[in-house]
Amino acid sequence: MSTITAYGALAGDQPLKPLQITRRAPGPHDVQIAIAYCGICHSDLHQVRSEWAGTRYPCVPGHEIVGRVTAVGAHVSGFKEGDLVGVGCIVDSCQHCEECEEGYENYCDGMVPTYNGPTEDEPGHTLGGYAQQIVVHERYVLRIRHPESQLAAVAPLLCAGITTYSPLRHWRVGPGRKVGVVGIGGLGHMGIKLARAMGADVVAFTTSESKRDAATALGAHEVVVSRHPHEMATHRGSFDFILNTVAAPHQLDDYLVLLKRDGVLGLVGAPSSPHPSPNVFNLIMKRRSIAGSLIGGIPETQEMLDFCAEHGIVADIELIRAEQINEAYERMLQGKVKYRFVIDIATMGS
Amino acid sequence: MSTITAYGALAGDQPLKPLQITRRAPGPHDVQIAIAYCGICHSDLHQVRSEWAGTRYPCVPGHEIVGRVTAVGAHVSGFKEGDLVGVGCIVDSCQHCEECEEGYENYCDGMVPTYNGPTEDEPGHTLGGYAQQIVVHERYVLRIRHPESQLAAVAPLLCAGITTYSPLRHWRVGPGRKVGVVGIGGLGHMGIKLARAMGADVVAFTTSESKRDAATALGAHEVVVSRHPHEMATHRGSFDFILNTVAAPHQLDDYLVLLKRDGVLGLVGAPSSPHPSPNVFNLIMKRRSIAGSLIGGIPETQEMLDFCAEHGIVADIELIRAEQINEAYERMLQGKVKYRFVIDIATMGS
Repeated sequence: MSTITAYGALAGDQPLKPLQITRRAPGPHDVQIAIAYCGICHSDLHQVRSEWAGTRYPCVPGHEIVGRVTAVGAHVSGFKEGDLVGVGCIVDSCQHCEECEEGYENYCDGMVPTYNGPTEDEPGHTLGGYAQQIVVHERYVLRIRHPESQLAAVAPLLCAGITTYSPLRHWRVGPGRKVGVVGIGGLGHMGIKLARAMGADVVAFTTSESKRDAATALGAHEVVVSRHPHEMATHRGSFDFILNTVAAPHQLDDYLVLLKRDGVLGLVGAPSSPHPSPNVFNLIMKRRSIAGSLIGGIPETQEMLDFCAEHGIVADIELIRAEQINEAYERMLQGKVKYRFVIDIATMGS
Repeated sequence: MSTITAYGALAGDQPLKPLQITRRAPGPHDVQIAIAYCGICHSDLHQVRSEWAGTRYPCVPGHEIVGRVTAVGAHVSGFKEGDLVGVGCIVDSCQHCEECEEGYENYCDGMVPTYNGPTEDEPGHTLGGYAQQIVVHERYVLRIRHPESQLAAVAPLLCAGITTYSPLRHWRVGPGRKVGVVGIGGLGHMGIKLARAMGADVVAFTTSESKRDAATALGAHEVVVSRHPHEMATHRGSFDFILNTVAAPHQLDDYLVLLKRDGVLGLVGAPSSPHPSPNVFNLIMKRRSIAGSLIGGIPETQEMLDFCAEHGIVADIELIRAEQINEAYERMLQGKVKYRFVIDIATMGS
């Protein structure tokens, strides 16, 4: 067992601050990782501020983790000391259900999230990646093949990357397919980059005229300001798939009507209050679907990392020091980040 | 051009009554059909009573049509005088879009419904099957291979049959798949029969304890009374596909949580006021979908009729005389029909 520094909160109404936490000694199948960088996901804020049910304290968020292996258990075969690795949203699962056997650990009923999940380790719930070190079963550790110089910008791939990659792949985005990406934030900016690299015709949707150029720079072939009905109307019945990254309640019908026959509106954000109820007529008329997707499985997370390494894809990030986390949360709430904050864990001291 | 007797309404607040209407003389590609029976669909009532937008009068409903060919145009190759045939919800479409070319005339933007659709024929909108005769382009005429003795009970296959068959096939219902059918009415009773014949494990859902035995008799392996939470709970996360035939607003979440990973809730009824907004969380957690489906294309309607002939499947019907149509509408509203009214067109007189 080792004692390390982390950043976390002791209650939902308190800011994050340095905490001393413990990590288990690596077991036979464990990989011990010195964390170099950890991305900040909107989920971190929801969980640590107790905006979702069931937050346990102390709460140390963070599930966009990259670093270097410092030790491995006796039975670990896939990793060795010095390897560049990542850990995403999942640190354990039942390992024997249909989902786990098919590599869909993300849909396992016993999936253990990287923070606030059940564990036998102290203090009885998992503590995330805003920390100097983490110990994870090798099954949930990913290999990073990007150059080390890109490591900080790789971190967000572990959540924002896989959360968008998985639905894009599942709904067969690629050459000859027209795909929309709604919302140009942490998730959406990855969705645009990935869909473009997959060879699709990519249209970005934003509520903000000011984001037009940014979306084009990210790789969108076309940008639609969703507040302009005439712009929306020109795309009616034309999309194979629309990836909707916006969690705030909004009219799903605006996007349903843009889908062609058998088109799918894929939601990756759950609103805190419901969206207006979608019009069933819009589903029936073209056999359209509204679907959801939750992060991704471990094998496809590795596939995504390799795809990104091959295509030179990383997140657009702003690197911050650990003591800036609370300030970063406020800026994230105001949408003032392009497009992901990443914590330089070296700034947590020794 | 021929003048025939039909049953229709002159306004939304008037009962249906005998009307004299005209049909065009068969063109080169047309089939003229002496109608023997026509089923009564809930849509008929909505349209004729102006509960949907845009009803044009006189309104002659009916899109579950069976009869015998009495004449064919010079270029008709697929049908000859005396053939047993059917006509469903579609009597024309653009014939050149992607949908038409792939046999999805039901999703063609120029699809002309069997009644209340645009036409050059008198009176400028299509008049349906509550009539002694109809003239239809051969592309939209279906061959009936059932024995003639079953003809009346075949009629509802042209709408209720294809509307349930198409989604069951599209979402790959068959051996080894668990499928639910929600609602045991005109559509639902066909859904149960078809899913059973396709080899699936079939569970019927009803709000009414009294329908248990009827659903079993229709072929359901198990019947769940949806008002009993403990019965619903035993099926959590277990369905590949649930066909929801209920158009009245209800909680879709009750069924979403019964789907396994990648399960689909298929809606074939559009409520007049919205369902409560479904919980996006229930979609995201298992990559579930809510989808819609509208009747079916012409090739798959023929496939459905052949499948039903092969498996001895017809609708459960109550045969009525033409003058009972208004009374039948009232009983349909009260749910007092097992499961479809069919009009004996011979009772319209000569």
